[in-house]
Order: sequence, then C-alpha cells, then structure tokens
Amino acid sequence: MSFRFVDIDDAEMTRRREVVEPLTDAVRDLLDAVIRTEVPDSEIADAAESVRAVTERLRRVQRDGPYGVEYTRTRTGMPWGNPAVGVRNAVAPPMRVDVADDGSRCSEVNLGAAYEGPPGLVHGGVSALLLDHLLGEAAGADGTPSFTGSITLRYVAAAPLGTVHLRARTDRISGPKKFVSGTLSSGDDVCVEADAVFVIPRWARPTEPTAT
Amino acid sequence: MSFRFVDIDDAEMTRRREVVEPLTDAVRDLLDAVIRTEVPDSEIADAAESVRAVTERLRRVQRDGPYGVEYTRTRTGMPWGNPAVGVRNAVAPPMRVDVADDGSRCSEVNLGAAYEGPPGLVHGGVSALLLDHLLGEAAGADGTPSFTGSITLRYVAAAPLGTVHLRARTDRISGPKKFVSGTLSSGDDVCVEADAVFVIPRWARPTEPTAT
Repeated sequence: MSFRFVDIDDAEMTRRREVVEPLTDAVRDLLDAVIRTEVPDSEIADAAESVRAVTERLRRVQRDGPYGVEYTRTRTGMPWGNPAVGVRNAVAPPMRVDVADDGSRCSEVNLGAAYEGPPGLVHGGVSALLLDHLLGEAAGADGTPSFTGSITLRYVAAAPLGTVHLRARTDRISGPKKFVSGTLSSGDDVCVEADAVFVIPRWARPTEPTAT
Repeated sequence: MSFRFVDIDDAEMTRRREVVEPLTDAVRDLLDAVIRTEVPDSEIADAAESVRAVTERLRRVQRDGPYGVEYTRTRTGMPWGNPAVGVRNAVAPPMRVDVADDGSRCSEVNLGAAYEGPPGLVHGGVSALLLDHLLGEAAGADGTPSFTGSITLRYVAAAPLGTVHLRARTDRISGPKKFVSGTLSSGDDVCVEADAVFVIPRWARPTEPTAT
C-alpha cells in the first residue's frame, strides 16, 4: 500500500487536474460512442487502430503500477485513479462529492449508457459502487480512518438512467464501529437505501484506559 | 424499457462481437494509460484531440439512447452495454460468466489500475458491482426473471488488484423469493461474502391455486 506525498500546493494540484481532466472526459465520451455506434465494420477497425496509437503515445512515460492515492503538501487527497470519483479514470461517471450544511455527504451524478443494467435503468451494481464510495466518505468525515465492514443495499424502486442524487451520513459511532446510512434517489423517489458498518482499524483507535 | 429481438443467428452474433470487441479492448487499454501516464502536458492535450476525432467518426451513425438488451432469434441475450459484462462497454473489466458443474455461476476477472480503491487494493464498490451482477446471473439460472430486492456484502479481507475469483449460487427459493449467495476471492482467501434476496415479479410467478 502506498499513500504518496507530492510536494505541490493546492494551486498546482488544480492546474494538473485541469490538464488531465479534458482527456479523461474525452475518453468517457469515446466509451459512450463505442457502446452506441452503428458505423460500418471497417470504420470500427480503423477507430481501434487510432485508439491504439494514442495509447502508445501516452505509455511512453508512465508509472509502473496503479495510481495509488497521492496527497499534496497540505494533505489534500488526490484519489485520481478511483473508479467512483477519479479525475483520471474514465470508469468513474465521475461522482463529485459535496458537503451539505448538516455535514452529510451528497452528490448529483449523471449516469448515461455506460451504467445501464436492465434496459433504460441504472445497473444495481453501479448504485452499489456509488453508495459504497459515498458512505465511505461520510464515515471519514470526522477524520478517523475506517474500512467498510459490511453494507446492505435495499432496492426499493428502479432508478432510470439520467440524473440521480445520493446522500450519506454517519448516524452514530460506537467503540470502533461507525454506523453510516445513505440513499440514491431519482427525482423525489428513493430508489436504493444503504446501511453500512465501517470499522476503525486498531492502529487508529483512541487508546483505552487499562485496568491497574 | 426495451428488450429488442434482432433477427440474427448466433454465428452472426459472434461475428459482430468479434468486430466490436477489439475496439472495446483498445479503449480499456487507453483508459488504463490515461490513469498512469506521465507524458508532458502538451502531449496530454494532443491525445485528447485525437480521442475526440475518433469519437466524432463513431458518432456519425449511432443509436439514440443507451444500448438496452438485444436477443438473437434463438433468444441468446446480448447485454453488450452492461457495465459488468458488456463487450461494448470499456467500464466493464469485463467479467465473463461461466457455469460450474454444480450449476453455480463463476468468473475469473483481472482487475487493473481502473478498479483501485485503497492503494493496491480493489475498490469495495467494484467488488459490490461484480457480485451484484454475478448473483443476478445465479438467480436467473432457472429461467425465471427476478430483480434484486436486497444484498448484503461483508468485507472480510482486503482484495489486492490482480486476478480475483467470484462464485454465486441460488441456495433456495421460497414463494416469490430467491435466496442467493456468493463470494469474491483472491488466491485461497475469501475477501467478500454476499447474500441477496431476489424477487420474482408478479407477472412471472406461477399461478397459485385459488380457494373454491
């Protein structure tokens, strides 16, 4: 596991994001086009060839393994390879996480053709991915690290593709456990309810008084 | 919702898959390169421009909305836009589903940089996406349609990026409910356990005898 610190300030981080984000967005758009295209077979083959040429150029200088998570000198996290929120990862819709007035984490996400399960509807597993991530952010709101112990998702209504809203908050903390809940909604309808238990790792727990 | 039938046989379906799959694979590889590249900023901008040109060509002829699910004349499903298994969708790793001797559904999936949560580890939400999908396939093994009612995931060990194995099966059916369970493993270690209830929609339930 590597959490890397890079000696840059947040302004430089923003500049770097603004360089790479248009490329990631372009790949998201390409990915949608590949799902929906009906051009002749020969053009599909040409497109694949062009894509491979771009990839080859990008691979001339690249990090060895996955992206990991980097932190700026002011400890702002850059989870740029993340499949839910990563600004370098075209798998991510991406979800942008906001903090509501009451401290809840919330997000408005637009889900297109790439996130379809049953025809016209959001894949249940995509709802699970986004909720798992947002509940994790809500669990981390107090600054204590924790990992998902378990999560239960209840699918109460189908979510049509398009704009969905997510919300999550920590309901209570008991010993090393954080109890977190959230929802995914479409318009006024709650489509998925989530409840999770996050566990604070032993090394991050407050020291308990020992009996003498 | 649209389940479309297309008047082709399975040989033609295979031919069409072999045309589009290399393009999807090329986009998967590009997506990985965008996460990991360290080429100079000017080359990032050039790459984005090249990607946009490919997208524009593919969009000259395209279906209006998302892909939906198509069926061949022999009722083979083509969920090609699906984010877990879709052969046109670069979001999908993709997961290929096999049927084990005992009727379980299983899959070996290779998860690279695009599926990373904590550094070096599979994002918990990606495990949820893949398990949700595989449990759905196991629930559908008897041919009766059903939708996810609820799913619980227990994260018992961290799953490193790389090859993971998934398995799922229907344990019992009681009235309109199917109880399905599964696991995601890395090597010999079970990393995530899943239990779900799938619900058979009213229109697909066997007619019950009525009291006279």
